Amino acid sequence: MKIEQLKVGPVGYLLLHQLRNEWFNHMIINKETSVFISDNDFEGTFQFAKRLCLDRLPFGIAEIIQNKRISNENLILEHYVERMNSNDIDFEAYFGNEDSLTLKCTIFTTPTNSVPFFHQWQRDRRIWWRKFSASPGRYSVTDIKTETNNTQTVQIRANYPWKSHIVETLALHTGPKYVSEADKFKDGKKTIPSSSIISTIHLNTLFMNTICDAYDESEYKGNKRALLRFHRKLAPYSISFAIASGGVAAIVQELNDLALHLTEQFRTNHLSTLFLPRSSKLSLEAQWRQYDEMGIPYNVVLNERTLKDGLVHLRNRDTTLKEQVHVSELVAYVEQLFKNY
Amino acid sequence: MKIEQLKVGPVGYLLLHQLRNEWFNHMIINKETSVFISDNDFEGTFQFAKRLCLDRLPFGIAEIIQNKRISNENLILEHYVERMNSNDIDFEAYFGNEDSLTLKCTIFTTPTNSVPFFHQWQRDRRIWWRKFSASPGRYSVTDIKTETNNTQTVQIRANYPWKSHIVETLALHTGPKYVSEADKFKDGKKTIPSSSIISTIHLNTLFMNTICDAYDESEYKGNKRALLRFHRKLAPYSISFAIASGGVAAIVQELNDLALHLTEQFRTNHLSTLFLPRSSKLSLEAQWRQYDEMGIPYNVVLNERTLKDGLVHLRNRDTTLKEQVHVSELVAYVEQLFKNY
Repeated sequence: MKIEQLKVGPVGYLLLHQLRNEWFNHMIINKETSVFISDNDFEGTFQFAKRLCLDRLPFGIAEIIQNKRISNENLILEHYVERMNSNDIDFEAYFGNEDSLTLKCTIFTTPTNSVPFFHQWQRDRRIWWRKFSASPGRYSVTDIKTETNNTQTVQIRANYPWKSHIVETLALHTGPKYVSEADKFKDGKKTIPSSSIISTIHLNTLFMNTICDAYDESEYKGNKRALLRFHRKLAPYSISFAIASGGVAAIVQELNDLALHLTEQFRTNHLSTLFLPRSSKLSLEAQWRQYDEMGIPYNVVLNERTLKDGLVHLRNRDTTLKEQVHVSELVAYVEQLFKNY
Repeated sequence: MKIEQLKVGPVGYLLLHQLRNEWFNHMIINKETSVFISDNDFEGTFQFAKRLCLDRLPFGIAEIIQNKRISNENLILEHYVERMNSNDIDFEAYFGNEDSLTLKCTIFTTPTNSVPFFHQWQRDRRIWWRKFSASPGRYSVTDIKTETNNTQTVQIRANYPWKSHIVETLALHTGPKYVSEADKFKDGKKTIPSSSIISTIHLNTLFMNTICDAYDESEYKGNKRALLRFHRKLAPYSISFAIASGGVAAIVQELNDLALHLTEQFRTNHLSTLFLPRSSKLSLEAQWRQYDEMGIPYNVVLNERTLKDGLVHLRNRDTTLKEQVHVSELVAYVEQLFKNY
């Protein structure tokens, strides 16, 4: 059986938000070239950027293009892993789904710089995909394909056991296509046209690839357990809490209050934190299972001893190893863990 | 004459992005209560959150609701200040425009906690508006109005010379409205219904209010100059460069290279930086005028001496005062300036 329609649940939506932001930060904020955002007005943005740059290259235009109206009908995955164990999801169909948003970035350069820039981008973009991956070797760049109209393209592909999926397309346009009155730039005393390098990613593909890339199964007491090894910069939640059950009600209440206090501190530091007040009703294993399925990189374990010596355990999702940290140092320590890529 | 249709230009789009993110961070990430995002499925998200919280209150649901399809036709303001001097924009019409996105956050609490929570939110939300404002005294909370159906509402208003605009509505729902089979929560051994507190903001209103709130005119050599006093956390660009013109071409080139190098460092640290390679073609005053109009809080001034002693001037948009900073300390110093609210 194939499920035809999946939908994005609350945790999936957070992941989408992270992915969109990561793309935005990388493409618009964190570039050598100034990139301007076009909201449905490429031509106007082009003119604006050209004027602001006093007719000099390079500059870029980023677009978030809504291909069709997003409705309840064509969305993806609820509480995503839940159903991933069951083999009835046709992931392939969703990889190719171009119904949602397209993330597109066009850089305009001088014709002289265009080829080196195109090669530089192939390297940069491949590194970007690898950086966030649980299996960086999965990503490869295809050979350059020459299309008509002075256009060259390459694809970045993600290899899965079932198929190799295109996750991004890079194109280089040179020559007559962009030559018009608007396309006259200054280069010293010469007048030159622009060349352009274009990156295209479908948000759906990025979303599905992030989940499939991160999906793993670990053996636990003879059973397989689902686990999402999200890069910590992409994980919908950075950190969660587990409270050891079985204590006296008053102690559990005190641990809950401590967890809530730490949650507020984490959130003040912009760390996306999941705090479930009644999690102590479940066993530690059951709590971890839930958090691993959501792909939360770290879990803070509080138990009766924490109230005496102030020590908590910080459990790593991927290694399942725990390290001791004092509560007073916890927030600064976790902030450090999430600081770099 | 009234302009009926304005559109968001590239800089305005960056502002929209910042506003949306700031709301997201405040409402979803940075809260005591866990807030889940609903993507067009409030009921499903409610069930998901209820299950995850083991039938205990409080929790929240945030929604970004697309009221109508955003098209070229109903957007706002290009390079925004440019036209703000001319009195032909009917800002009022745009304040009330509910065509774009609605940002909505609903917190479900126990009936006992709902009234204190409602009061707490009135304070919190007013502080939020004031925090980002160039004139914090502009914001006030209206008296509580009791509607039918056990609903109370208050409005947060921004006072302008021409009118007092509603920028946010807060509502408290108690009583029978939400009582259904799905609305049974546990409180110790009791079964209770939930009460809810709802904040509603229209993204258009937030956008227009941010611009009008920040808009100012300063006197310069007998002329009025437009200026946007955006809070540094909201400014589309955090920092820009001005290069003193009139130098030898080789020196200007060297200063340009230095500015580009610093731009890359700023961007690596996720500071949104505007670098216009040929800005030295304009006088310093003309460069600042441009950056002030975009509301960029700080400007790095490079001149011939910078190449000898390594000192740059950091110009503050609001005070127009400049302080000397050594290039080697510039990035860390600016990062510090943007760290806190």
